[in-house]
Amino acid sequence: MRSIYCGQLNKSHVDQEVELCGWINKRRDLGGLIFVDLRDREGLVQVVFDPEVEGLMDTANKLRQEFCVQLKGVVRARPDSQVNKDMATGEVEILGTSLTIINRSEPLPLDFNQQNSEERRLKYRYLDLRRLEMSDRIKLRAKASSFVRRFLDDNGFLDIETPVLTKATPEGARDYLVPSRVHKGSFYALPQSPQLFKQLLMMSGFDRYYQIVKCFRDEDLRADRQPEFTQIDLETSFMSSDEVRAMTEKMIREMWQSLLDVDLGDFPVMPYSEAMRLYGSDKPDLRNPMQLVDVADLVKDVEFKVFSGPANDEKGRVAVLTVPGGAELSRKQIDDYTKFIGIYGAKGLAWMKVNDRAAGVEGVQSPIAKFLNEEVINQLLERTNAQSGDIILFGADKRNVVNEAMGALRLKIGVDLGITDLDSWKPLWVVDFPMFEEDDEGTLHAVHHPFTAPKGISPEELEANPAGALSDAYDMVLNGYEVGGGSVRIHNAEMQETAFRILGIEAQEQQDKFGFLLDALKYGTPPHAGLAFGLDRLVMLLCGTDNIRDVIAFPKTTQASCLLTDAPSKANADALTELALDVVAKDAE
Amino acid sequence: MRSIYCGQLNKSHVDQEVELCGWINKRRDLGGLIFVDLRDREGLVQVVFDPEVEGLMDTANKLRQEFCVQLKGVVRARPDSQVNKDMATGEVEILGTSLTIINRSEPLPLDFNQQNSEERRLKYRYLDLRRLEMSDRIKLRAKASSFVRRFLDDNGFLDIETPVLTKATPEGARDYLVPSRVHKGSFYALPQSPQLFKQLLMMSGFDRYYQIVKCFRDEDLRADRQPEFTQIDLETSFMSSDEVRAMTEKMIREMWQSLLDVDLGDFPVMPYSEAMRLYGSDKPDLRNPMQLVDVADLVKDVEFKVFSGPANDEKGRVAVLTVPGGAELSRKQIDDYTKFIGIYGAKGLAWMKVNDRAAGVEGVQSPIAKFLNEEVINQLLERTNAQSGDIILFGADKRNVVNEAMGALRLKIGVDLGITDLDSWKPLWVVDFPMFEEDDEGTLHAVHHPFTAPKGISPEELEANPAGALSDAYDMVLNGYEVGGGSVRIHNAEMQETAFRILGIEAQEQQDKFGFLLDALKYGTPPHAGLAFGLDRLVMLLCGTDNIRDVIAFPKTTQASCLLTDAPSKANADALTELALDVVAKDAE
Repeated sequence: MRSIYCGQLNKSHVDQEVELCGWINKRRDLGGLIFVDLRDREGLVQVVFDPEVEGLMDTANKLRQEFCVQLKGVVRARPDSQVNKDMATGEVEILGTSLTIINRSEPLPLDFNQQNSEERRLKYRYLDLRRLEMSDRIKLRAKASSFVRRFLDDNGFLDIETPVLTKATPEGARDYLVPSRVHKGSFYALPQSPQLFKQLLMMSGFDRYYQIVKCFRDEDLRADRQPEFTQIDLETSFMSSDEVRAMTEKMIREMWQSLLDVDLGDFPVMPYSEAMRLYGSDKPDLRNPMQLVDVADLVKDVEFKVFSGPANDEKGRVAVLTVPGGAELSRKQIDDYTKFIGIYGAKGLAWMKVNDRAAGVEGVQSPIAKFLNEEVINQLLERTNAQSGDIILFGADKRNVVNEAMGALRLKIGVDLGITDLDSWKPLWVVDFPMFEEDDEGTLHAVHHPFTAPKGISPEELEANPAGALSDAYDMVLNGYEVGGGSVRIHNAEMQETAFRILGIEAQEQQDKFGFLLDALKYGTPPHAGLAFGLDRLVMLLCGTDNIRDVIAFPKTTQASCLLTDAPSKANADALTELALDVVAKDAE
Repeated sequence: MRSIYCGQLNKSHVDQEVELCGWINKRRDLGGLIFVDLRDREGLVQVVFDPEVEGLMDTANKLRQEFCVQLKGVVRARPDSQVNKDMATGEVEILGTSLTIINRSEPLPLDFNQQNSEERRLKYRYLDLRRLEMSDRIKLRAKASSFVRRFLDDNGFLDIETPVLTKATPEGARDYLVPSRVHKGSFYALPQSPQLFKQLLMMSGFDRYYQIVKCFRDEDLRADRQPEFTQIDLETSFMSSDEVRAMTEKMIREMWQSLLDVDLGDFPVMPYSEAMRLYGSDKPDLRNPMQLVDVADLVKDVEFKVFSGPANDEKGRVAVLTVPGGAELSRKQIDDYTKFIGIYGAKGLAWMKVNDRAAGVEGVQSPIAKFLNEEVINQLLERTNAQSGDIILFGADKRNVVNEAMGALRLKIGVDLGITDLDSWKPLWVVDFPMFEEDDEGTLHAVHHPFTAPKGISPEELEANPAGALSDAYDMVLNGYEVGGGSVRIHNAEMQETAFRILGIEAQEQQDKFGFLLDALKYGTPPHAGLAFGLDRLVMLLCGTDNIRDVIAFPKTTQASCLLTDAPSKANADALTELALDVVAKDAE
């Protein structure tokens, strides 16, 4: 029905007759002529209907926004004065010679010329996706998937599908359950990741596996989370963590080069401990140059308990952030930042403005200066290398609170004061994570997952000091987002049983939940390692949006609803009877 | 850890030092030497450990089947007398120079040298997949997916993901339901296909969409069905059914060419009515040349009620199958075929052996000859063009019974008697399906689905004679398997409402279930058409197996269980409480 897409037309087509299909993006009547912008997925082109062409004007007169039409016409160059530089096809226009209205449109419930509420956009998603801004994102996503597949195909990875109806796995989040009709009272779980299946594929000898695959988590949703999300999931045998990182770094670098024409360069590698020390975060945004500086040793003996308390607590931390030009912050701004870090549990925000560095203690202004002696202040100025005009912000609390609060404050101030270069790209690898972290009750949890191998130690050494063990895990971080993460996996049964034991999973539970994995480890399991990227996040970054729903064709709300189809919805009673299920309480609705 | 895959070695590598990783496929000790076949995903190579190489034999002596090892060695040509022509690498062998056992293996629970029960193979799937026969299938599947993606990418199709947690849709089979925790008492459904979403994507203007996507049906499983299966799903705008068929036919033809080096040629197009008439099936296996021949008009007036009854019933059919060489069938064989068609509801199998065609009525042998007069028998011989040595088999019953029974019999006899050329490839398109079929209660059901457009008629004409309407639908059939099916879709609200009405879906239910679709049809919907292939079936055909579980890495049993992970399984009580669900009966377990 068409000979070319609207958006592909240019001067090389002048004098050609073309057939186009698309939608009326805009109509204007001018001097007896009717001008329309015709839109298809590749873009817009201007079409002119002229009364001198017979038999067209009646139909053309009926055209309204979003009518779906088919037309023929001749491409002609626009006069210089009418070239539209904002339009890719702006050097040409089509003189219409025939016109068919395929389908009319009622006035739209969305106004394409202004901001619409997200609720409305999601309800009429099929219309929202007509906006070129949105369709460009979905197209870029398709390109990204395609790029990844070709890269991995070309590198010997096999695309192998793993089950969606599977067994509950221990990724740590809540599973979505699917009741079985055949086995009444039993449930499948939707996978949080294909972790165990991809490990089994390595045990089968497939050597290199990948899949772009939907995963599911029934968690309370944040702005950048969805109940179903898409992973680029991969696993390799006989490769070290260095090799896995090198290969996947190459993939991401080439992807950015190919899709954005951006060179990400080599990715620096940073140990977890350094990331926490310098940025208070395991996914530091390196577009922001500010770093935290530890000063506990300087304030151990001051009278100010707010500082000396954490400074003398082995679980405490005292660290400062020196903000260039921050001395100009108003009292109000500082109060706002104090409130901001309160979200993270920080009880206050001590500060010290450096008005005149050369004047030493005389040159600083701070409500807490009186609690610190001159020597301490001088040491602080020296260690932070603060300059005139800077402000020094203090975090002093439990280590976790300082890291979270000061880490978040660093990000916020970086953007607020224009310190962060938002147009740059800063990737890195974070490595050497601890194997386990302790919760408030002193229970150990896996930082990655229970199948992650420790780095360079035996099962005995791991059991002797689990809290001190590092894992052979790695996260890829880009502009402060964790875009991918993975690890070398445990490939022998003894180590796996040790890891389970440390996590409090006793022998019987090991058998019930992971018997098949422990079995499989007995039959010549190869060393293996892998990684999973969050495709939604990668595409979000590629598109330059921070709303994950903008890169998903049919996303769900933060209430896990689809406003378009009105899912979830009531099931009919027969279906529930067949599943032997009863809904016992509806009050939470 | 390796420099090359085992299976890639050949004479060009002679004298090179290589590093290999893999599994001990077989070990033999001979004249003081130890020979092993080392296996990786690309194949096998023979490695020799010679006592003259120092410090290796102790380790080599420990090798057992399925040990995972890393080794170095030098490639050398085998003497002519020892070349193994059955082995891709059989012209060379490796002289081992170093050997590390990465992981030992206990004796396997599967015997790779003999047939194992499918139950055992599924329980130890990770081991079963080590067999080259199985891993080759999974690799061919990956190649097939990759081929499809490249073809569709190159033809302007966009890979767009649609939701897995969605709303119940009316594909006709039972949905898998997923209880919502946030909206207690409500359920998502897993998609039976992305049908409505892909139509919405056309309404959004994406023009060409595809996805290789998991779909779900909670149906009682047959040998070639799985609860989750994979579709190559595609949809286009502004293309006619001819164009969609031409493009997808090209894809399958090029796929067979590329993966099997087989030329499928042009696909013939056959109306549904002809397929039913000639083959009793809407997915005829054209590798079998036998056709059904209608003879109702010949037996309308015979006394034999078994024939004359259906011959005079407008819902009846009397048809014969002439089997070349079938006069040699024994009484026992004919009895077995009679039993076989009993499965399809046929009450008996009348037959007539043509012992001597030239002798006319005298030359036939048949228990029913006495009920037919000479003229009828002569007419039968003439119409069937039966030859001496053939047998004529009669089907006389309700049309459905005759079609199913004689269609199945045709397939079975074709294979049993070697009439079907099992080594050939016979694709075709079946088109011009009826829009609706009537069930025993006289209710109309959609033959494809309720969104399929009728062929060349208006909503008024459709409503006036729904039972007579043909749809613009098409199925691709290959060797008797329906490998793909699709249709032109309804693209205006009036026609869609008419179709719903004919199916007994009244206005309120239309709004509740499909309100968003009817809404969407108001805003300039383009004409659109699409198709979905069953990837599992395509790969099954590519692999030459008739067990669909052989082409799925982790399949489920016909009881919808995963024997490897033991899914489905009990959910913990807390999870059910959070979902506000109660299991009300377990007796069906």
